[in-house]
Amino acid sequence: MYQNPRGTRDFNPEEMQKRKIVEESIRSIFQKYGYKEVQTPIFENLELFTAKSGETIINELYSFVDKGGREIALRPELTAPVIRFYVEKLQMKPKPLKLFYFGNCFRYDRPQKGRYREFKQAGCELIGTVNPEALAELIAMAYKILENSGLTNIHLNIGNLNVLSAIFKKLNLPKDKQSYLIPLIDKSMFEDLLEALSDFGISPKDSSTFLDILQTTDLNKIQEFVKTDKDAQEEILKLKEILAFLDNSFKIKNYTIKMSIVRGLDYYKGLVFEIEAPKLGAEKQLCGGGEYELIPLFGGKETPTSGFAIGFDRTILALETEKYKFPAQQIDAFIIPVSDDMITESLRIAQELRKIDASIDIDLMRRGISKSLKYANSINAKKAIIIGPNELEKSTVTIKNMETGEQTTVKITDLKNNFKS
Amino acid sequence: MYQNPRGTRDFNPEEMQKRKIVEESIRSIFQKYGYKEVQTPIFENLELFTAKSGETIINELYSFVDKGGREIALRPELTAPVIRFYVEKLQMKPKPLKLFYFGNCFRYDRPQKGRYREFKQAGCELIGTVNPEALAELIAMAYKILENSGLTNIHLNIGNLNVLSAIFKKLNLPKDKQSYLIPLIDKSMFEDLLEALSDFGISPKDSSTFLDILQTTDLNKIQEFVKTDKDAQEEILKLKEILAFLDNSFKIKNYTIKMSIVRGLDYYKGLVFEIEAPKLGAEKQLCGGGEYELIPLFGGKETPTSGFAIGFDRTILALETEKYKFPAQQIDAFIIPVSDDMITESLRIAQELRKIDASIDIDLMRRGISKSLKYANSINAKKAIIIGPNELEKSTVTIKNMETGEQTTVKITDLKNNFKS
Repeated sequence: MYQNPRGTRDFNPEEMQKRKIVEESIRSIFQKYGYKEVQTPIFENLELFTAKSGETIINELYSFVDKGGREIALRPELTAPVIRFYVEKLQMKPKPLKLFYFGNCFRYDRPQKGRYREFKQAGCELIGTVNPEALAELIAMAYKILENSGLTNIHLNIGNLNVLSAIFKKLNLPKDKQSYLIPLIDKSMFEDLLEALSDFGISPKDSSTFLDILQTTDLNKIQEFVKTDKDAQEEILKLKEILAFLDNSFKIKNYTIKMSIVRGLDYYKGLVFEIEAPKLGAEKQLCGGGEYELIPLFGGKETPTSGFAIGFDRTILALETEKYKFPAQQIDAFIIPVSDDMITESLRIAQELRKIDASIDIDLMRRGISKSLKYANSINAKKAIIIGPNELEKSTVTIKNMETGEQTTVKITDLKNNFKS
Repeated sequence: MYQNPRGTRDFNPEEMQKRKIVEESIRSIFQKYGYKEVQTPIFENLELFTAKSGETIINELYSFVDKGGREIALRPELTAPVIRFYVEKLQMKPKPLKLFYFGNCFRYDRPQKGRYREFKQAGCELIGTVNPEALAELIAMAYKILENSGLTNIHLNIGNLNVLSAIFKKLNLPKDKQSYLIPLIDKSMFEDLLEALSDFGISPKDSSTFLDILQTTDLNKIQEFVKTDKDAQEEILKLKEILAFLDNSFKIKNYTIKMSIVRGLDYYKGLVFEIEAPKLGAEKQLCGGGEYELIPLFGGKETPTSGFAIGFDRTILALETEKYKFPAQQIDAFIIPVSDDMITESLRIAQELRKIDASIDIDLMRRGISKSLKYANSINAKKAIIIGPNELEKSTVTIKNMETGEQTTVKITDLKNNFKS
């Protein structure tokens, strides 16, 4: 027997129904904020991703050489492709440019719960401005997208990489030692972090202050700590403006300042944020984003940019964990021709009802009424329409309400009125 | 500068808008006929496609060896993956099973107009019955999908591979010679076909009759020609039933009998059909389908199946060729804060209006009114809402109708009424 490749999934109708509902919900919010959808290819030239993330990313990629000798990679994320598209074809468009996307991405990773080799991302890029109101709107939109999907338990964390950098400076550690510490910070492994700091010769007092500042949610305390760093001060003032917009305009107060946010990617700078579903454990991060700089690297004219990506599969998982009630897939009616010579008229009636936007299925297997009713039940039909010779002689049909079992006789000419919403 | 790989495309917001409209139109018809959406991975184990189409298909595939040593291929079509999915996970579902899909497919082909290396297909599989009413509904649905997308100039051709086989039998040609002739028939290269028949020692009279039967649209004439072949007779009687349903139940009369339809794939049998957009020239075929047998090959229990696939990109191309008017992408309003201290209130108003499902963009670049109005125009905003200090003092805003230029003053509390549809 043939199977789907390891780490990939097949989605059955029930799963697809959920996914379509969540996708449309996300799309509707992007559109309400004036974002416009774009799409890029499933694969790109490998160099696009190595230029952005370095050669080591090749280990995590599905990459191959095509028949024309080109090095190709299935995309691991969509920011690089969208910015490549922007630089190549959209630079002349009026700014700001608000772009959103949905797309499958691929990582050669060990499959585990909530981590697949093929996964779906939704996301956006805001090109042309990083004004505080622009970043506040971006964060608010990410939050509203997850809220609107039906999630009730989400949490927003906001940090700033320039401020994190200033905090690091106070330790006087060179870059390579910082690089060793960053993954520990990213994973909130604070005990290991303390140990490493001690190994690097940092005094217990400085280590303790460092950890305290990384973990505090009090922005004023952080501001005081980095008060000698001009860039960090400016970033904190800007962050305060962003938070004021979130509070006063978007009524989002449920967030935490978290300077230990380290977006894994090298091209982020300034504001960073993430939204988590706390109940998901190790895979709790649903959304990550912030300011970044990628356009000059791809040969475009420097322009301020920000954006975020939402893990679509994890969002579904979070909804399921919250036991969100997705509406059941239904069909308006299932038509049952009682005998073979009723089929022509039954198909005709089905077609008429579809014209008024009803979803209509019909017995195609010439089964008896009771087997057909059982099938109608299995496909979640709201009504069964039974078309028999006696009824047809009087130009009527029998409608059975599949929920109540109630049966009524209806004139064929009145049938459409039963299906108008 | 980085570019998208050869044969692939980026879709800008205007193109995506068209594609979403057509996709939703197609989806709505599938759903009205009781079909349910499924999704399979972008890549499959290579053997899935070689099992179905033979080793030669490898030349046309994007195939590669993954880091775990598995032979993988980007899918060239979706019938094999969907049937693999069915055999693996859906065999126990009540029959018939009506499944539809959308998905990107990949072929390593020379790129040309209407042919890309990454292309999108929509399609369906009907599993469990090939009764005449089932096949009639399948053909009608394909036709209605293309009609409903907005196409006015489409044509349906219907053939039958068992009948074609019976026609071949009358020539007494062995299989290998038939295989040589089939591509010529497929491409309607009738002069080359005549020449080949002559080379194979077929008399001019028999050749001429053969070509006549291949080209006639008169089913009775074909029936007479193959009257000694029992299987072909049965297929023709069934085809007549299908045509009667198309005529009487679905009111589709605009079709042609065409016994020269040869679906390129080996696993088709019985009924075949195609729908073309005659104006598209070499790339005119939008849809192809019919009965096929693939489930036993993939290890499943033999079950009658049929289905079709629609070339999504060609359907868009056909609509463009017909100069179909897609609705323009619009945004309900663009908000302009006159000064920086208006931003908080402007963002708040934007957020309030989004709550009643209006699409609202807002100036994020702190530009003057005239530059903002120009931008509002470029993003096709229906209205501009100008929020200034004098108005705000009276709890009002100015609304400018971007089409007529008309300006009105509206109380903020009444603003929502302007955006209810």
